[in-house]
Order: sequence, then C-alpha cells, then structure tokens
Amino acid sequence: MEIDDLVTRMKQGDRRAVGRLISLAENDLAAARGISARIFKDTGKAYIVGVTGAPGAGKSSLVNQLIQLLVNKGARLGIVCVDPTSPFSGGALLGDRIRMKEDYPPGQVFIRSMASRGKLGGIARATKDTISILDAFGLDYIIVETVGVGQNEIDIYNTAYTTLVLLAPGMGDEVQTFKAGIMETSDIYVVNKMDHEGADRLVSEIESMLDLGENTQLTHDDNHVITAIKKSSVAGWRPSIKMTNSLTGEGVSDLWDEVLAHKAFLETSGMLRQRLEHRFKNEIVEILRATFTYHLDEALDPSKNAEVKSLLEAAISRSKSPYDISDSIGKFIIKKIRR
Amino acid sequence: MEIDDLVTRMKQGDRRAVGRLISLAENDLAAARGISARIFKDTGKAYIVGVTGAPGAGKSSLVNQLIQLLVNKGARLGIVCVDPTSPFSGGALLGDRIRMKEDYPPGQVFIRSMASRGKLGGIARATKDTISILDAFGLDYIIVETVGVGQNEIDIYNTAYTTLVLLAPGMGDEVQTFKAGIMETSDIYVVNKMDHEGADRLVSEIESMLDLGENTQLTHDDNHVITAIKKSSVAGWRPSIKMTNSLTGEGVSDLWDEVLAHKAFLETSGMLRQRLEHRFKNEIVEILRATFTYHLDEALDPSKNAEVKSLLEAAISRSKSPYDISDSIGKFIIKKIRR
Repeated sequence: MEIDDLVTRMKQGDRRAVGRLISLAENDLAAARGISARIFKDTGKAYIVGVTGAPGAGKSSLVNQLIQLLVNKGARLGIVCVDPTSPFSGGALLGDRIRMKEDYPPGQVFIRSMASRGKLGGIARATKDTISILDAFGLDYIIVETVGVGQNEIDIYNTAYTTLVLLAPGMGDEVQTFKAGIMETSDIYVVNKMDHEGADRLVSEIESMLDLGENTQLTHDDNHVITAIKKSSVAGWRPSIKMTNSLTGEGVSDLWDEVLAHKAFLETSGMLRQRLEHRFKNEIVEILRATFTYHLDEALDPSKNAEVKSLLEAAISRSKSPYDISDSIGKFIIKKIRR
Repeated sequence: MEIDDLVTRMKQGDRRAVGRLISLAENDLAAARGISARIFKDTGKAYIVGVTGAPGAGKSSLVNQLIQLLVNKGARLGIVCVDPTSPFSGGALLGDRIRMKEDYPPGQVFIRSMASRGKLGGIARATKDTISILDAFGLDYIIVETVGVGQNEIDIYNTAYTTLVLLAPGMGDEVQTFKAGIMETSDIYVVNKMDHEGADRLVSEIESMLDLGENTQLTHDDNHVITAIKKSSVAGWRPSIKMTNSLTGEGVSDLWDEVLAHKAFLETSGMLRQRLEHRFKNEIVEILRATFTYHLDEALDPSKNAEVKSLLEAAISRSKSPYDISDSIGKFIIKKIRR
C-alpha cells in the first residue's frame, strides 16, 4: 500500500516520501488517519516552537536567523509555514519560504508551506498532521510560523510548546490589536528591529501590559478554542521579552537560549504535560470537526442523500423547519457512520 | 411554558416579548429549537436585505437613511446589527444602534445588536434565528448590517435576499480587499460619500471588475460556505452600482428603488426560490454545527465523560493516537444523541 511504502521510505531518510505523506494528509482525511496509525508511536521527540506576529514585524527573517543558528549547532529542523487566507498578505510568505529552501543543507532543514485558503478549521488539523509527520521523520525542532491574525495565532498556541510573539516598533495599530487579547498566547515576546526608534518604549509597554494582565482567566469558546489565557506567570513563568535584529542576527542567540529556558521550565515544572494534554485535546477536536464536516458534506449532497431535495422543498413551503430538517440530516449522518 | 407565553405575547405585538425570545434563542440552542417549532409557519413574509462594507464606508449612516425612508413609507422594519469580534472596530457599531433606538417610532422599527465575541460559527446560527423571530413578528423588511470582514460578509450573503456592498472613495487598501474575492457576494454596489473626490473613479473601477469577473464560479469550502460566487449577471442580473451620500440622504431613495428592482427580478426569474434553497441549506448547516459543538463540549468534559482523562493519558504515553481517541469520542457523542 502506498502509505506503508512511503512511511518505510521516510524512515530511511527519504525527504520526498515525507513531502508526499504531508500532501496526502493535507488533502485527504482518510489518508491522514492511515498515516497517523503508522507513525504516531514515533512522534513526541521534536520540540515545537511557534512564531507569530503582525505582518511586517520580521517573522520570515527572524526564522531565517533561527535556522542559521540551529543548523550551525547541527540540529535537524522543520519549518511549517501557515499561509493565511487573508488577501491582505497575499503570497509573500510563500515566496520567502521558496527562497529559503535553497539556502540551507537539505539534510538538515525541511521547509513546508501550508495554504489555508477557504479551509475553515481544516488548516489546523492539517498543520497538526504535518507536524506529526516531521516529528516521526526525526527532526529535533519544528518551527511553526504564521501571521498573527486572530484564529491563526490561537491555533499556534494550541500547537506549539513555546510560542514567540513578534512585535516591532512603529507599527501603531497592529500593536493595539495584539493588546486586545491576542497577546496572551505568548511565552516570549520578541521586540524585533531593536535598532529602530521606539524599541525600548515598546518593551516598557509590553512590561506594563504584563503587569496589568496578571489576572486574565483561561476561557474557551464553543469550539474549544482558547480565547484568553491565564498568564503563565501565575503558574511560574512570566512571559519574557527579548530584543532582536533579524537582519544582523543580533539577539537571536540570546532569544534561542530563552526558548531553551522555557523548555526547561516546562519540563521541570510538569507543565509540559499540561501543554501536551491541551495540545492533544485540541487535535482531537480538529479531527472530529473535520470528520463531521466530511459527513455533513455527504449528507447534503443530493447525489448521496436522495432526501435532500424534498427536505429543502419542505422548508421553502414552510412545512418543515430548518431544525426539523437538521434532525433528519443528523440521523442520516449517524446511520452512515454506524454502518 | 415560558416560550409559549412569549410567542403569544409577541403575536399580540409585545416588543419586549420579541426581545426576550431573541435573547433565549441566542444563548440556548434548545430554546432556539423550541421557538422555531412555534413560529416557523409564520415566517417567510419579511424581505431580508444585507448591508456590508469596510469600516468607515458609512454603513451605519446609510442604514439610518434607509430607516428614515422606510418609516416614512409606513413600513415596519427590523435592523439586525452583527457586531464582529474584531478588536479593530470595538463597540462603535453598537453605540450607533443604541443612539438610533431613540430616533424612530418604536412601533415601526425594531433594532437588535448581536455580539459575536468568541462565538465561532454560533453567531451565524443566532442571527438566522433572530431574523426568523422578527419575520414572525410581522415586520416588512429586515436589514442585516455587518462589517465586511471575511466570514461576516459571506454570512450576510448566505442570509439576505438582496446584499448591498458599501464602498467609499479614498479607502485604498480596503477596496483591494473587496476586490480579492469578497466583492462577489454583492447584488448592488453602493459608492457612498459620492461628493468625495474619487467617487466616479471608484464607480469605473467596480465596472471594470465586473467586466473581468464574468466567469467567476460558485465554489464552496468544506463547511458549505460559499467562497466565490458566479456573477449574478450570468443568471440575468449584473450587479448594479448606485451612488449615495449617507449624510444628506442623496441617492438613498434611488438605491431603495434598485433594491425593489432586484427583489422583483428574483421573484419573476424564479431565482428567489434558489436563494431560499441556498439560505435554508446554510441555516441547516449552522444548526448542525452548533448541535455538534454542543455535544462535543459534553463529550470532552471530564465531569460528563469519565473516559476523557484516560484517553488523554493514552495520547501522552503514545499508546492511542488522536485519531483513535477521536473515534472513541465520536462514539460517545452518537450514543448520547441516540439515547
């Protein structure tokens, strides 16, 4: 079978097999399930770092610096770049990634871009499956990068062990946005462009925000997505702030030491376990949502469910309410699943 | 029972009962179901108009002008304002609505703001239930207003019969955003601030965009949400462009005539039926998603599903994969539903 063969080749170090497995998992839930069954026992070794922040804060160049640093240390790493749907940012991120591919030794760096166009919810599931495959491939670190816009950023927190939130001086409104609740998903704040005017002020602003926010509570919305997170400081880790210059590399080594310090903190405090539990819970939710969507698609397809047309007729003639019809569709789905 | 009593009072014209029913439907899926069962047969009379557009385009003042116009014609109308989660716009919309409440005869205008904070998916379901209640209350027109940011705007198209997309000259990037696929959800383009420089140019830009876009296809994403829509022109309605000044009211009467022309077009062409079918399909999807989320919440709550803790343990020790666990959780949900 194709998946078995690909997994075998992946274990022998075949990078093309890794790419093919990721594509399969991305596009087909059944394939993702099959791959997971074969590789799950080999996962759990890679350390996952999230990098997020406003467009223009310098994420791509910072990630480039981190790659350089880690490659020099002899680490093997994966970069997963989640390219958001938003027409605001276009394909810029993807362009960066393609350029990067040629700059690093292929044996040490595996780069993968994921496009999220139109795939509500689906991208989070596919990203997690991609990380699992890279983890099973035997990489030491996996860096997940996304533009910090609402849900993307929360998905990163739900995925990574250590999350870096990038800011840069002079971004005005962008910083305001971060302050409005999203910034709580950070373990380490990175003030990039440290040589620009206002960098010190930005550091103080983040400090004050952290002082103010000590009482934030952990809350979930209806979809089990965290909407606000209790400051780590309450549990012993106050988010730290590091300054970098992603063009010259200044501060990057220091920043990485801080990532390792956070990793050590999670491990010794027992909080890594909590993060793992949270991560798995979230992954299970994403799988169930993707599965539900798949069945819902079928149940509303007139070629697969002959009843659909007459049910919609009944709604239009006001003889059956949408709630009544949702019951019928729900029963169809359950019947399909049980068969 | 409370719902029966409230529905009776609503039928007698009690506005407070209407407000209470909306609150119940908004916060509780079981209540929404009960209300729908009692009022669905009385719905289908109101004509639903969507108003969307970038922040700052003048939606609130245009809606104010439309209210004035329709009140003078003796119509009874409902305004449903979907206040987005986004920290960008804050509570400004809500503020406008509260101000408006005092400006119009209460017997003729019913205004309701819906906050979407954190309720992924849930807001679309609640908005549709709110519209049904206002429809059953006997209003002639229901205007749904939302800031045109991604999903919000698509939700409006999935809800309204006629959708107005507002633009204003000098908004730069915002217009770019609209061009990037979202604008396809429009039946009528409104170029507001017609007295500002660049209004004529904006009209020509929209015209060229319409010329270019004749071949756009109707596509859905995994969640049955339309992501691109075939230009209505293909089916006989090329989106029209109207200029308004929402401060002076210039062009507003003309705009309303165009709304009525679109309504007449939908009715005579048989396309209203298609829209209705699409709307109901979407409403059913929203109900099923909300129901699924409710059950998923229960299934992942350790106080309701004793198995959860040990399943997560099994994931952490890598003895059960997230896919295996999602199967167990899925079975729990089905058992619960069938009981």
